[in-house]
Formats: sequence, C-alpha cells, structure tokens
Amino acid sequence: MEIYHLRKNTLISFLKWPEIITWGQNHYRDRTFNQNERIPIRAGLLYLVQSGAVSLMGNARANILSQKISPEETKETFLGLMGTGYPFEVTENTHFKLRALARVDSTSVIWLYWHDLDNWPNFRLEVSDFFRYQHQRQLLWLTVLGQRQAIDRLWGFLTLLIEEYGKTVDKRVCFPYPLTHSQISNAIGSTRVTVTRLMGKLRQQGLISVDADSTICLLDRNK
Amino acid sequence: MEIYHLRKNTLISFLKWPEIITWGQNHYRDRTFNQNERIPIRAGLLYLVQSGAVSLMGNARANILSQKISPEETKETFLGLMGTGYPFEVTENTHFKLRALARVDSTSVIWLYWHDLDNWPNFRLEVSDFFRYQHQRQLLWLTVLGQRQAIDRLWGFLTLLIEEYGKTVDKRVCFPYPLTHSQISNAIGSTRVTVTRLMGKLRQQGLISVDADSTICLLDRNK
Repeated sequence: MEIYHLRKNTLISFLKWPEIITWGQNHYRDRTFNQNERIPIRAGLLYLVQSGAVSLMGNARANILSQKISPEETKETFLGLMGTGYPFEVTENTHFKLRALARVDSTSVIWLYWHDLDNWPNFRLEVSDFFRYQHQRQLLWLTVLGQRQAIDRLWGFLTLLIEEYGKTVDKRVCFPYPLTHSQISNAIGSTRVTVTRLMGKLRQQGLISVDADSTICLLDRNK
Repeated sequence: MEIYHLRKNTLISFLKWPEIITWGQNHYRDRTFNQNERIPIRAGLLYLVQSGAVSLMGNARANILSQKISPEETKETFLGLMGTGYPFEVTENTHFKLRALARVDSTSVIWLYWHDLDNWPNFRLEVSDFFRYQHQRQLLWLTVLGQRQAIDRLWGFLTLLIEEYGKTVDKRVCFPYPLTHSQISNAIGSTRVTVTRLMGKLRQQGLISVDADSTICLLDRNK
C-alpha cells in the first residue's frame, strides 16, 4: 500500500488571500478563539481560517422513534476540519445544527458576506472551486461511511483525513491536530470502545503508529 | 414533525442550459442510456443530466485487514442521485472508484471539458455554486451517517433524499425513483435485512408509507 499522494494546495492557494485578510481586519470582521471555543457562525456568511484550524460538527436529532428527545440524546458528528487558508460556510436547516469549534489555541477567523466578494470576482470563483473540490472529497467520505464493517470505516476515515492534512515525518504521514477516540467514533458512527480496540488492530498490522502525545500516523508499508 | 421545505431549484435553474444542451448535441457529446447501464465517466469532464437520472456509486476496498481482496469483497456505496438538470463530475483517486449508472431508461447525458465553459463564464459560476450547494448537502449526509443507530441513519437518509428529490402527492412527499432495501443498506452501512426490519418500524410509526410499486413517501404527521 502506498501512502496517499497529497492533492491539497491545488485549489487553496488563493491569490487575493492577503488582501482579503487585511480587508477583514480593517472592517472588524476578525476574531481569535481558544481551543474548543465555539465559533459563532451564521448562514449566508463566508468564513476564512486565517490561522489555526476549525472543526465542523453536525447535530442530528438522534433516536427518531422516541417521542421526546432530551439534549443528551442528540449526538454530535465530526464533519471535517478546515486548516489555515480554508474557507467554510454553513446553511440553515431545521433538522440539523452545524457548529464550528476552534481546534487549537489562537485560531483566527475572518468573515465576509457573499456579496462582499463582488469586489474580487476571481477570488469568488476560487472559493467556489474550492467547495467543488470539497464536494469531491466528501464523495470519498460517503464511500467510506457506507462500509458495513467499523474497521473499514475507521481505516478509510484515517486515510482520508491524513491524506488531506497530514505532515510527512520520517516516512510517516501524521495528523497534526489532537484527535481522540471519542471524536473518531462520532465521525464513523461507532463507539469509543470499538475505536480503541480497532486502533490496536491497525497498529498491530503495522498500518498506523500512535505517538506518546496521541499523534496518529500512517506508516508506509513499502519502506 | 414538518415535512422538509424543498430548497432545490434555487441553484439549478441554469440560464444557459438550452444553449449548452444544443452545443453538446452539435458536438456529438451526448448519449442516452438504459436503466442500470453504466455511464462511462472520466476525471476532468463535467457531465450534465439532460433527461432521466443518474446514480453515483463509490467502491472502497473493503476489509483492510485481509491481505488479498477478491472483487466480491469490495462493496459499492450509493453516494447520491443527479436528476434532470443536475451537473456532476468525478476526480481520480487510487483507493476509490466512483461510477455512474443510469437510474431509469432514456437517461441522457452530455459532457464538456471544464475549459469549454470559458465560453459561458456565468454558467461556469452557476455550476460551481451548484457544487457549493451540494457540499452543504453532503455535510448533512455526513451528520446522518455519523449516527450510531441504524434507525437514525435510515431516517436521516430518507428525509434528505426525499427533501431533495421528492414530489408532493396528497400531503405525502414521495421519492420518484426505484430504491431497493439493498441500495439503502449500501448507502447507510447496514444490511438489507436490517433495512427491511427498520422500514417496517417507520411505517408502523406513521412516518413513511410504501406503495405497492415500492415508492417510498414521507407522511406529514401534522395533517
């Protein structure tokens, strides 16, 4: 098995980025967050991650068959990560709530109305193309999450995530942000206990390594 | 529970559609398929569904822990549906194969290179915005597929699909294409047997109805 070839940066090297960051700062449209702090997001706005990283979380009303749902019964799903230089947005929906959390300290975000982008038509097109690319990535996520076995969902999830965000260190490609087994289980529709057991299996097979600080890396089996 | 408000058509009323369809036909870039016929797709091309509907399927290498994988061990996931008037595209990936199938007879598709769209810059922007919208829809799909209970994944899957493509008939909103329990199970990472059992539960609860021809409908509980 080869390590995935990274395809990132093909669409996110926005030409006008510095100009737009400056514009956001001059218009008081920037704010910095601590790790795990909630980032207020509104439909109709475009957000740009200036530094740090942002997790996007989805909340569906769990257990449709029970008549009354307490807040504890809703379960939050990890939907993806936006690193420095990534745009993101959310739309309104009655049945799903999306929220954004700062993934690390000093995560800084600026925001714009879509019509602000009329000033930078090429940037607008670049952002749209980025979401086009994200759409393609999500088709792969959906392929992974449609797998019946939790081990296949786990492996697919880790490879997609590390393909997108991984940093190469000594023939290993590592995920540069903290990621708990509980967070993984919330992404792949499994339990924390199952994820811990299956992570052990992947380690034994020499597919992944986990460092003392919990950093998860894919190993190159051809080395 | 209210029936979802349909948000479709907000982004897919492409102004230049008839002109581009004519262009495709004049350039021999159109072809018609029978139900379940495979539509050849290549990365770098944009496809437009001129009539009928197309299913997008993803193939991941299942069972990562076994050393040799026979073709029967790979499992195909239902990734989504493109109805008449929808654009779609796929990108290359070593580990995942996407394929497109005609959903109904007389499904007709035209194709363009992305650079062909330089002739119609506004159409290009409309298509990009459509994929931006699809990206948002997929965040909701991912929220649904991250649910631990199969019943919640099933219910979320049906409501998202019918919200997007459903046709209203007598206070019911129905999915206008054939959809088997096996196909549903391949979308939500479950088994056909489980889907059949859980569809029975949703029917008993008065959440859905299934017609003699297997058409699935959401019922409005407030009627």
